[in-house]
Amino acid sequence: MSKLFNVAVIGATGTVGETLVQLLEEREFPLLNLHLLASSESVGQSLPFRGKNVRVRDIDAFDFSQVQLAFFAAAEAVTLSYAPRAQAAGCSVIDLSGALPADQAPRVVPEVNAEVLASLAVPVQVACPNATATALAVVLAPLRSLLTVRRLSVTACLAVSGAGREGVAELARQTTELLNMRPLEPRFFDRQIAFNLLARTEPIQGTGHTRSELQIAADIRHVLADDALKVSATCLQAPVFFGDSLSVTLELVSAVDLLAVQAALEAAPGVELVDSDDYPTAVGDAVGQDAVYVGRLRSGLTDDAELNLWIASDNVRKGSALNAVQLGELLIKHYL
Amino acid sequence: MSKLFNVAVIGATGTVGETLVQLLEEREFPLLNLHLLASSESVGQSLPFRGKNVRVRDIDAFDFSQVQLAFFAAAEAVTLSYAPRAQAAGCSVIDLSGALPADQAPRVVPEVNAEVLASLAVPVQVACPNATATALAVVLAPLRSLLTVRRLSVTACLAVSGAGREGVAELARQTTELLNMRPLEPRFFDRQIAFNLLARTEPIQGTGHTRSELQIAADIRHVLADDALKVSATCLQAPVFFGDSLSVTLELVSAVDLLAVQAALEAAPGVELVDSDDYPTAVGDAVGQDAVYVGRLRSGLTDDAELNLWIASDNVRKGSALNAVQLGELLIKHYL
Repeated sequence: MSKLFNVAVIGATGTVGETLVQLLEEREFPLLNLHLLASSESVGQSLPFRGKNVRVRDIDAFDFSQVQLAFFAAAEAVTLSYAPRAQAAGCSVIDLSGALPADQAPRVVPEVNAEVLASLAVPVQVACPNATATALAVVLAPLRSLLTVRRLSVTACLAVSGAGREGVAELARQTTELLNMRPLEPRFFDRQIAFNLLARTEPIQGTGHTRSELQIAADIRHVLADDALKVSATCLQAPVFFGDSLSVTLELVSAVDLLAVQAALEAAPGVELVDSDDYPTAVGDAVGQDAVYVGRLRSGLTDDAELNLWIASDNVRKGSALNAVQLGELLIKHYL
Repeated sequence: MSKLFNVAVIGATGTVGETLVQLLEEREFPLLNLHLLASSESVGQSLPFRGKNVRVRDIDAFDFSQVQLAFFAAAEAVTLSYAPRAQAAGCSVIDLSGALPADQAPRVVPEVNAEVLASLAVPVQVACPNATATALAVVLAPLRSLLTVRRLSVTACLAVSGAGREGVAELARQTTELLNMRPLEPRFFDRQIAFNLLARTEPIQGTGHTRSELQIAADIRHVLADDALKVSATCLQAPVFFGDSLSVTLELVSAVDLLAVQAALEAAPGVELVDSDDYPTAVGDAVGQDAVYVGRLRSGLTDDAELNLWIASDNVRKGSALNAVQLGELLIKHYL
């Protein structure tokens, strides 16, 4: 009989945490006891797991020495407070919040840079990259032997579920108000998101970029181990409930061989390439799926050393929860 | 008393044609008689103009020698059939359909390359560029003395009104069906557009690009008279009724002086620059306005020879109808 593990999920009642618990069940994670933890306001809720309801308990009272592995799908501040405590108790940590610095918790996408795990000491600290960076890395990694990317320019049209349940509820509420011709007062977002696009998903920082845009640049360079890569990222808030859509332009050092790129993507793990006369969408294809969908593969309009493509990906699943569970699977298989 | 002109509007019952007629009234175009023309199915409808209803008549029966100027806001095929007839009758033509080749009907944005008009013989043939190219040109022209753009990469999130009234109706219908939990059967678009993004606005052509993407590249180079400019364009269909949003990355030959760019855009005609800690949106700012709105001005994340910005523009107005009326104003002032 193979070994079983005790696991904690922090932030289990959020959009990502809930999907993570589902995936632990679906993928038959070798789990003995599952502990769902949250900060005080979610305590007392419960989530279904293997036919039972598991109650969410207060993280403050939890003894991390009971578990070998903890998934942090909570707010950044929660991760910063409790991940050190988990590690001090000998528990490995998978950070989905992006809170832990990359030099303490390397960003890993199993299809791309799993080898990083081999150099880490137990208890391990490892993190999921930003969801957009993860989707990009899954698509770019199988192309590394075919082309050298000088600059990656991405416009990420992000679903409101990236902002959690309140984002989803607010898009639904605004849309209903508008269709019923009632005056609109934006609440959760800073303006009308229904039938509109917002030029940012978060406050703009000093240099003019947002936290997600900075994360995308840092994480994609880190995961691809390519510090020379130039990255330009714009994150839009789209009036879409689930699933991110990325418009990507790659500036290359030499002309692109489209057929070779196509063949490499067709063979790549975690990638679903859609024929060039068709295209995938977030809602129609990616949502609820493990794969990252790629379409509209084409060389530049005016430059044959340019590659354009479109990516549709489930932001909650591969963008976060699935990647974390895959990391957990690797950790227990090889290191714990 | 200044001279008055007889004018025809072809395709007057479409989204763009209707706005064009409104603008002729609002801007007090020196007009004696207005003739609204359409192909047979729209004949008999009427549009309000200066307090009266003007009836739409059959273009087949129209004698173009009655007018000095004709706006073609109809389908491409209509322009290709009737623009030569108009010109043969001595009538100048402003093409909003993009049907006439650029060497016969140069693309002109009054704020950018009005000087082109001086070289044309009467009757003049002139055209509005693609709406996205027009918005880009209005923003890039005032920067020409400040920076040299090597590559322009744009992801254009286009409103369904760009596809006409049927696009608008279909987004409304799909959204209502989904909010009422009824099963969705896409009609006008090839899949679900409500709460989704489509990776193209038109069929994909041989090289993998769409007609609009090819037009953007050709028109922006033509209007800016810059054949060396590399252009990468992706046109998405967004679940937005009115107003286009553009995410733009400019690769420059040298480091960008952000303050100088800001000053130039603040002074530029037809441009409304929004502070860097705020941003404009299509629905909240651009729709119904003449100006092209610019925000999220910032240098590159990883490259100071890069400039990123966001543009929100009324696709029907400055993108098409307003630009055409401005061209008409220039023509009658200087050439007719």
